[in-house]
Order: sequence, then structure tokens, then C-alpha cells
Amino acid sequence: MSVLIVGSIALDTVQTPVETHPDLLGGSASYASVAASFFAPVKLVGVVGTDFPKKFIRLFKRRGIDLAGLQIAEGRTFRWSGVYEWDFNTRRTLSTELNVFEKFTPTLPRDYRDAPFVMLANIHPNLQHHVLDQVRRPKFILCDTMDLWINTAKAELLALLPRVDALCLNDSEARHLTGETSLIKAGRALLALGPRYAIIKKGEHGALLFCDDDFFSAPAYPLEDIHDPTGAGDCFAGALIGTVARAGRATPAVLRRAVINGSVVASFDVESFSLNRLIQLKPRDIARRQAEFVRLSRFQPG
Amino acid sequence: MSVLIVGSIALDTVQTPVETHPDLLGGSASYASVAASFFAPVKLVGVVGTDFPKKFIRLFKRRGIDLAGLQIAEGRTFRWSGVYEWDFNTRRTLSTELNVFEKFTPTLPRDYRDAPFVMLANIHPNLQHHVLDQVRRPKFILCDTMDLWINTAKAELLALLPRVDALCLNDSEARHLTGETSLIKAGRALLALGPRYAIIKKGEHGALLFCDDDFFSAPAYPLEDIHDPTGAGDCFAGALIGTVARAGRATPAVLRRAVINGSVVASFDVESFSLNRLIQLKPRDIARRQAEFVRLSRFQPG
Repeated sequence: MSVLIVGSIALDTVQTPVETHPDLLGGSASYASVAASFFAPVKLVGVVGTDFPKKFIRLFKRRGIDLAGLQIAEGRTFRWSGVYEWDFNTRRTLSTELNVFEKFTPTLPRDYRDAPFVMLANIHPNLQHHVLDQVRRPKFILCDTMDLWINTAKAELLALLPRVDALCLNDSEARHLTGETSLIKAGRALLALGPRYAIIKKGEHGALLFCDDDFFSAPAYPLEDIHDPTGAGDCFAGALIGTVARAGRATPAVLRRAVINGSVVASFDVESFSLNRLIQLKPRDIARRQAEFVRLSRFQPG
Repeated sequence: MSVLIVGSIALDTVQTPVETHPDLLGGSASYASVAASFFAPVKLVGVVGTDFPKKFIRLFKRRGIDLAGLQIAEGRTFRWSGVYEWDFNTRRTLSTELNVFEKFTPTLPRDYRDAPFVMLANIHPNLQHHVLDQVRRPKFILCDTMDLWINTAKAELLALLPRVDALCLNDSEARHLTGETSLIKAGRALLALGPRYAIIKKGEHGALLFCDDDFFSAPAYPLEDIHDPTGAGDCFAGALIGTVARAGRATPAVLRRAVINGSVVASFDVESFSLNRLIQLKPRDIARRQAEFVRLSRFQPG
């Protein structure tokens, strides 16, 4: 079953201590859509400017992504640039130009409104609300967010959470939103805000999945060489909802597998700039890394 | 098979934001011995003063711990006091009185020298060397350490590492000793220093086990209420070597199980001050939590 993904599409300039790359394909919906496309058909909703390179349109199409919801607006595409410190743990935004994204209203094509699986990638909570106002009884809604909205649109974000099935955020965001230092307490506190599932991404420490009657701790893939962490969280969430869509239903067991697939795809994402590694990815690469996740986490108790 | 454990025995005064408890049984060897005793017979080597409460001697004896190596020296027992911040993530030492520990020389009783499994709990590396100078070809030697020795006795610690089979330390110590920010790189760098196995404890993020041909990522038990984290690392290492001793040999599969048992016992330790929870522990409590570790980490890939 197909996944509707709504979020940002950007041209990124990314600096690491080693390299700088300008005008990369970026944005939460770009990463999430390509990641989800390995597991289920994707319908993308976003906006780009008239300067958006055709090669990126072709990239989406090669992944079978439905672009009926992609708006091409007069003007320049949303641009972001940032720099990573040598350990990749801290990222500093150098500049943000909203451009056509400033007036973006996510209007869904008619045949998108029945999408059974919906991912609200990281955009302003009001836009996420607007998407939910248009869809008809989806089976499962996943919402991502970021510190910026916790700081500037907390009321709108809190109003959104009872409307979604799952909330996905990183450890610092989970602590920030709940005021809890312990991630276990933070996870429980997130559930109290409305969603049935809460997923806390912990970077090199893996991810935690919370629901009322289940708790899952997923390991991280042991990466020694990270080239560009941009989009890892979006890839995680995209592969997660793609896996749920492929299963056709959200159960704790499906969500566990989805968290692992999120970790698998995110682990590939960071091996290269932009989506460069992901567009090379074969199903057998994913299967091999899934098997590695099994190997690195299994034990015989006693 | 039995485990020889050498380390400190202390009387601790522990402050948390909620409570203060004076004159608790503490010290690396106390925690490690009681933790190991759930899995294998333990021979303890340490020193206490003439003020050491008889009730703590009885506590060790009730756990079946061989005290032939316990020295009782004229003077006061080693004392430590510290305070935890409200989130338990930072600990500040308020005072340290070495007392009889200042002149401690770990001399092994004759029948301890053939111990097949040896744990060098956290004490000065020179004392750890001195223990190894006395033992005869043990099957497996586990070494713990701390930031203090990395700062003040690094050469002695580095000389020790090729003499041991496994090194166990926490994430900040691993980064400090290797100069690597990535824990994956740090783990590999620890192996290059000599031991066959390196175990990095990550607190609420679980633990990582490295060896040349294996990597294991263990989850943490999802604790919501921590009462006193003192000794958690020592309990982890004690249960770990106890498990290896019970198996009678160190293989990657045994080490994985040992890391889980370390996490299990450490998770009980922090539920109460000192060894108060551990001395209540029944084999069925351990078995139940081992099963919970299985539940919280399993998934069906696909």
C-alpha cells in the first residue's frame, strides 16, 4: 500500500571538515521519499522553484515516486547550508533561504486523499495539520518534527500529536519536548501527549520504540566512517513508514521491523553526501544489512 | 569455576537529590564480588580497617564469598563520599580518605594463585600488575579501570592491557583513553592496545562488545527510577566475569551472554543504595530480567 509523504524539498550546501558540496538534493521529504520507496510506492507532496534541477526530478522518478503532488512555483527552491564539526555531532546552520517554501501550502491531489499511510515529514506543524485536514481516515500517520517547532510552534505541535499514530524525533528533541532527562521517562511522556507509538532516535546509540504494551531497543549499525549525516533522521522515518505500508498494518512487531529498516537505510545515507548512496542501493544491500543487525544484537540468555 | 576478584572495599556516603546514606558498603571489589557470586564461586582480595562492620563480613559470607584474601589492617577502612545531581548523570566526589587502602598490597593466598578467572576491579594499575605477577596462567583476565588512572598512571595502564583478555570501561573513559570520539573507532582502538575483548559500558544506552571477529550491541534495561547508580559498572563487570567462569571458557557467544548478565545485575544494583537490592536477589529475578532483555531486543527482519 502506498505512502503519502509531505515535507520540504531543498537544495543543500553541506560542509564537513573534509569536503564542501553545493546544491545537493536535500529536504525532509526528499530523503524520506527515497528511503520509503525501497519498501512501498510513494506519493510526494512538496514545492520547488523553477530553478530545481531536472536531474533531481528524474532521480525521484527512477525511484518510482509519484510526483503529482509536487508543486513547481515561480522563484527559487528552498536553500539550506550548514557545517558539521569534525566529530559530526554538532551541526551549525550557515544560512536558510525559504524562497518558494515560504508560501507553501500542501494541497493534496484528489487521488492522494485516500492514502492509507501518511508521513508528515519535518515542516511547520500548521502545514502538518493542513495535510491531515485533507486526508480521509488513513490507517497510520507518522509525524516527524524538530527543535525549531518545539521552540516556536509548541501549541500547534501539541495539538497535532493526538491526531497522529506515531511520533518520531531525536533524543535531544524528546528531552526538550517533555522536559525529562531520562529517555525512558521521555518516551512514556510522549505517549501521554497522544500518539500510540513514540520513536526516539539516538544516533550512534540506536533507537527506542515505545507503545503502551511494548518497548523495543534497536541497536545502531557500527559505522566507522561517516561522510554526511544530513537526512539520516528523515531516511529513518521514511524507511519506517515504508515498512509499515508494505506490511499493510501497524502492529508492535511490524513497528520493530520498521525501526530496524529505518536504521538500515539511515546507516547507508550517512556513508555519502545527499542521496548519493541511497540511489545506488539494491534490495540485496538492504537484506545484507538487515542480517547484520540480527547478528550484532542476538544472544543466548542464561 | 571460581573467580578471583581484587579491588577496593569501602565505606561510602552517598547523597542523591532525595536521600543521603552514610557508611554504606562500597568499593569496586565489593560490588563486583557480590554480582559475580550469582554465577560462580568468588575469592575476594582486598583490605578493610578494624572499624569495618561485622555485618558486611556476614553479607559477603552469605553470598558464599571466600574471604581468605581479605586483609584486616590496623586503622580505618577506605572511605568515599559523593553526591549525584538530580538526573544522576553527573557525580561529584565530596571526599576520599584512603586510610588502610593507602598501603594496600594485594597478596594472594597460595590457593588463590591457580584461579582460572581473574577480575582486576578498579584499583591502581600497579596493584593490578602485582596481582598478575602472582597468578599462574589463568584462562581469562578481565580488567576494569577509571579516568583517574588514565590521567595519572597511563603508562602503567597501557603496559597492563596486553596482559589481560578483556578491558571493560565506560564510554567517556574509552574516548579519553583512545582519543576517538566515535565509540566504534574507540572500541577498535582499545583492541589495538592489547586485549582480545573490549567492552564499552554506555549507561542508559547499553553496552558494546568488541573483538576481532565479533561485535555485539547490548541494550540497556529501561529503568524509570534510579535510586543510586554507585557500583553499577562494578556489578556489570562482576556479573560478566561470573558468567564467563560459569561457562568455563571465553568465546564470543559466552561474552555476549556475559554482557547481558552484566546489564541485568547492574540494572538491579541501581534500584537501591549500596548492595541492598542485590542481596535480596533470587535466581528467578535474574532469569526474569534476562527474558525481558530478550523481549526488548528481538525483531523479525524483513
